[in-house]
Amino acid sequence: MTFLFNSDTARGQVFRDVFARELPDLPFSMDAASVDPDAVRYIITWTVPSDLARYRNLEVIFSIGAGVDQFQAAKIPDHIRIVRMIEDGIIRMMQEYVTLGVLALHRNLPVYIQQKKTELWQSLPPVQTSDRRVGILGLGSLAQASFDRLKPFGFSVAGWSRSAREIEGVRCFSGPAGLTAMLAETDILICLLPLTDETRGFLNADLFRQLPKGAGLVQVGRGPQLDDRALLDALDSGHLSGAVIDVTDPQPLPPGHPLWRHERIIITPYTASVTQPQTAALAVADNIKRLRAGLDPVGLVDRRRGY
Amino acid sequence: MTFLFNSDTARGQVFRDVFARELPDLPFSMDAASVDPDAVRYIITWTVPSDLARYRNLEVIFSIGAGVDQFQAAKIPDHIRIVRMIEDGIIRMMQEYVTLGVLALHRNLPVYIQQKKTELWQSLPPVQTSDRRVGILGLGSLAQASFDRLKPFGFSVAGWSRSAREIEGVRCFSGPAGLTAMLAETDILICLLPLTDETRGFLNADLFRQLPKGAGLVQVGRGPQLDDRALLDALDSGHLSGAVIDVTDPQPLPPGHPLWRHERIIITPYTASVTQPQTAALAVADNIKRLRAGLDPVGLVDRRRGY
Repeated sequence: MTFLFNSDTARGQVFRDVFARELPDLPFSMDAASVDPDAVRYIITWTVPSDLARYRNLEVIFSIGAGVDQFQAAKIPDHIRIVRMIEDGIIRMMQEYVTLGVLALHRNLPVYIQQKKTELWQSLPPVQTSDRRVGILGLGSLAQASFDRLKPFGFSVAGWSRSAREIEGVRCFSGPAGLTAMLAETDILICLLPLTDETRGFLNADLFRQLPKGAGLVQVGRGPQLDDRALLDALDSGHLSGAVIDVTDPQPLPPGHPLWRHERIIITPYTASVTQPQTAALAVADNIKRLRAGLDPVGLVDRRRGY
Repeated sequence: MTFLFNSDTARGQVFRDVFARELPDLPFSMDAASVDPDAVRYIITWTVPSDLARYRNLEVIFSIGAGVDQFQAAKIPDHIRIVRMIEDGIIRMMQEYVTLGVLALHRNLPVYIQQKKTELWQSLPPVQTSDRRVGILGLGSLAQASFDRLKPFGFSVAGWSRSAREIEGVRCFSGPAGLTAMLAETDILICLLPLTDETRGFLNADLFRQLPKGAGLVQVGRGPQLDDRALLDALDSGHLSGAVIDVTDPQPLPPGHPLWRHERIIITPYTASVTQPQTAALAVADNIKRLRAGLDPVGLVDRRRGY
């Protein structure tokens, strides 16, 4: 059995070193052209190779990133297991970014960035964190880790997921009715949803309308979830006060796109959370050990839900 | 004995209500013109009244803000005690702002704000928090509270003060040699120093030169501590990568000032930390109870040091 690394060489070398130490008996290849396809049991990749069928004994596809939406278009046979990347580096970077986005909106940074352009020194009245209601869409491991950083500031925190969850110290909502209920009392909304058929276009005019006037958005999900026009309209009407956006559609965002030109939007170029080769390699090695021991890997995708 | 509130009426009303509940026997006045000056034992104010001498029985001047540098020009007789504002609201706001400033620099926000203007989608390589060294100048209660929020992210944290301090989990430096040592290993420098004769012009070309290339600055001290020209030069040469500034000199920063025009500077209009009337009133009421019990008030200023 062989582990095939199908991504950039720099990260591959980190994986090779970690695997040599952690799984010395597992053959490791970074070269799809020379590997014996019948020997390949595991592949790690960002997109599914078009010649997937040649790996007749393939058991598991690991995504090199936190999401697996990029796999959805591909025909992956049902018996192959798909595993998302859940590793400490991704989680820590997302904690940082979500906290940065929430604090930036809480402390009116989009307004002050705009005022700097006109050289205007004018402060807005302070709002206490206990009066600032933060709501996260999607209650996976990234959301839960983000709550850990937000809570010490005293924000009032809530979260929504499709099916019911319980998280200590977080008001949890679920289902369509729960979504309406949470939106009505959310001043800063964070999107950490996976991209599925149900979440495409999720951040739309109807959703923004349900937020209180002056609310802000942190978009760290996937680009196609956001209706750009609806966001720009909500900002222009003053219903929303600002947005921090790390993912767009198309991505990279092309010059001339209206999202670039709105003054109340902070844009970062898909940098919120990046897989860290060292910790990622360790996480995948641990998952292979779990698989060998007959356990489910961490991050196993439910093929029916799509995440 | 009377407590004289010498500031804006809106905050005064909050103080009056809190004092009526906490210190019902203490006469409370918001009107210097009608009060019996001989009855005034305590004054709370931002600047020292020019007719201070008329309050012959005055014992304590409370500052309505965290700093007391605005008192220094005034002649305050030695027997009058000066008390800084140390209250939960100021501390919590500073924790938020320092965390926001550090995360903004850590995650290259000044660069991305600049790239948005040219509609450029280009990410910088991620840096782990454990490789990002944060150093705070000034180790008072605001700094110590800020460390509490920074540590969970995994930043390497250090602090400097004039005289030696010990804070758990923080590498503490002191004195001139300690300053040089800390600067050499600080990627994000935060100024939380009080304004004194020694700290005027403290953030100058010589200090910036001692920071590693690419370092950033969060200035939440007082405007006259920063040599604007030195900061602009350090940013232009690329030695410093960005700055987050909440205080300036002059303040408000006038239109046309070069600080407004530098692309790697984020400016907020003195909003980092604002006294919250409710918690401030409680803190002052508690201090009066301490004084009546013969204890030193929290925030008592050492007249010799000036803070």
